[in-house]
Amino acid sequence: MPAEIRVKRLVQFHETDGAGLVHFSRFFLYMEEAEHALWRAAGLSNAPSTGVGWPRVACSCDYHAPLRYEDEFEIALRVEGLTRHTITYNCAITRDQVAIASGKLKVACVAKGADGRLVVRPIPDDVATRLG
Amino acid sequence: MPAEIRVKRLVQFHETDGAGLVHFSRFFLYMEEAEHALWRAAGLSNAPSTGVGWPRVACSCDYHAPLRYEDEFEIALRVEGLTRHTITYNCAITRDQVAIASGKLKVACVAKGADGRLVVRPIPDDVATRLG
Amino acid sequence: MPAEIRVKRLVQFHETDGAGLVHFSRFFLYMEEAEHALWRAAGLSNAPSTGVGWPRVACSCDYHAPLRYEDEFEIALRVEGLTRHTITYNCAITRDQVAIASGKLKVACVAKGADGRLVVRPIPDDVATRLG
Amino acid sequence: MPAEIRVKRLVQFHETDGAGLVHFSRFFLYMEEAEHALWRAAGLSNAPSTGVGWPRVACSCDYHAPLRYEDEFEIALRVEGLTRHTITYNCAITRDQVAIASGKLKVACVAKGADGRLVVRPIPDDVATRLG
Repeated sequence: MPAEIRVKRLVQFHETDGAGLVHFSRFFLYMEEAEHALWRAAGLSNAPSTGVGWPRVACSCDYHAPLRYEDEFEIALRVEGLTRHTITYNCAITRDQVAIASGKLKVACVAKGADGRLVVRPIPDDVATRLG
Repeated sequence: MPAEIRVKRLVQFHETDGAGLVHFSRFFLYMEEAEHALWRAAGLSNAPSTGVGWPRVACSCDYHAPLRYEDEFEIALRVEGLTRHTITYNCAITRDQVAIASGKLKVACVAKGADGRLVVRPIPDDVATRLG
Repeated sequence: MPAEIRVKRLVQFHETDGAGLVHFSRFFLYMEEAEHALWRAAGLSNAPSTGVGWPRVACSCDYHAPLRYEDEFEIALRVEGLTRHTITYNCAITRDQVAIASGKLKVACVAKGADGRLVVRPIPDDVATRLG
Repeated sequence: MPAEIRVKRLVQFHETDGAGLVHFSRFFLYMEEAEHALWRAAGLSNAPSTGVGWPRVACSCDYHAPLRYEDEFEIALRVEGLTRHTITYNCAITRDQVAIASGKLKVACVAKGADGRLVVRPIPDDVATRLG
């Protein structure tokens, strides 16, 4: 059964732009906040101190309706798929059941190699078990 | 012939995150900065005062290699397609010819309707002519 | 008795910078989030639709200790003083009783004049009453 | 003679907020961008790889007039004072000679101690010489 989380959030003023709407780039921050909430809920940590990192390989978002200052909304994020080195998340952002945005986030597991460069490595077992 | 622009940029410290890399969401800001530079270069304005707005309908990005503090990079953005109501941009971010990220941005032309809601409307002629 | 609020918050990953610490500019966003929470708690709105705006006239912050990813912290914000046109807030940010930062925020009440420029105007009565 | 730099900049759309003005917290990013431009112009680096860091001890800003989307402005930053462990910068932001904001930034020189905590240390000689 895929790991999933739902996070409630309020639009902060500093997240709106000159058009009076939440800036489109912010939705990726909302997704990432939900991703990290999912990890904490699963008893996992993605902090740099764990020795591995989780850079984003790809992401996308479709926007259906705008969010405005003080809107309450929900971020529903679930693990859509796991490979040996990557995790793909699926995300739906809604306000009062109205679809606001749908996104995807694909992250890879990396570690710093001997020369300081980031190299892909297998997802740690506890992460694969708890998110799989 | 599609409209195109190349913008050179330096990574600012505040654009890096706790992993020491430019945060993935920032790439959409780079794309948008290039989009607006393209508009200015084409003698166009996307300011709210023009009466129409350009919300994003969809966007995506594939990440090939990280950017770090003080890296010099280039954003190449071009109009990939125009429909009656939308513009799609294609974007390639490189550092010293190395592919860093490839992205897409699809925007729609909207205006505020009588009830205050945003409604899709045809792209103004001058925009279609200069970007088409 | 001065209006006051305490907001608990978790450091999000995208709020940290390349030094692994919360970027110093973010503390002003924390203060502003608490300010708006205070307004909501007092039954007030600072949304642009109210006809007046609240630009910042001055702000300052002293930093005592850093915040890191996933740190839980508290923002305590209180109204320090009100004049006919301005509100001054005092803010203390702490983590487990440890002083992290102390800040100040002075905002003015403005409205758009006939020529579109922002002009100072008296603070509306309900705001003065509920925050005073 | 104090080190000084002038940086020209254009307001990007994503720097404006729901009030149609540059968000007040952004001015600290402008100051920091100028600070780092000053370091580069002086042949210095503040990158984490240098072994010392430059956290902010205090900052402040007075706002005189707003900045809007596509405004061209100038950030003038100069070293106001140096102590054994700190640098204080003074900053004036202007648009066409109009005063927009005046700020201050005080930073300390730190290094990671044996226990991983940040400890104050003397400013490296080359930094003191070139900025002093």
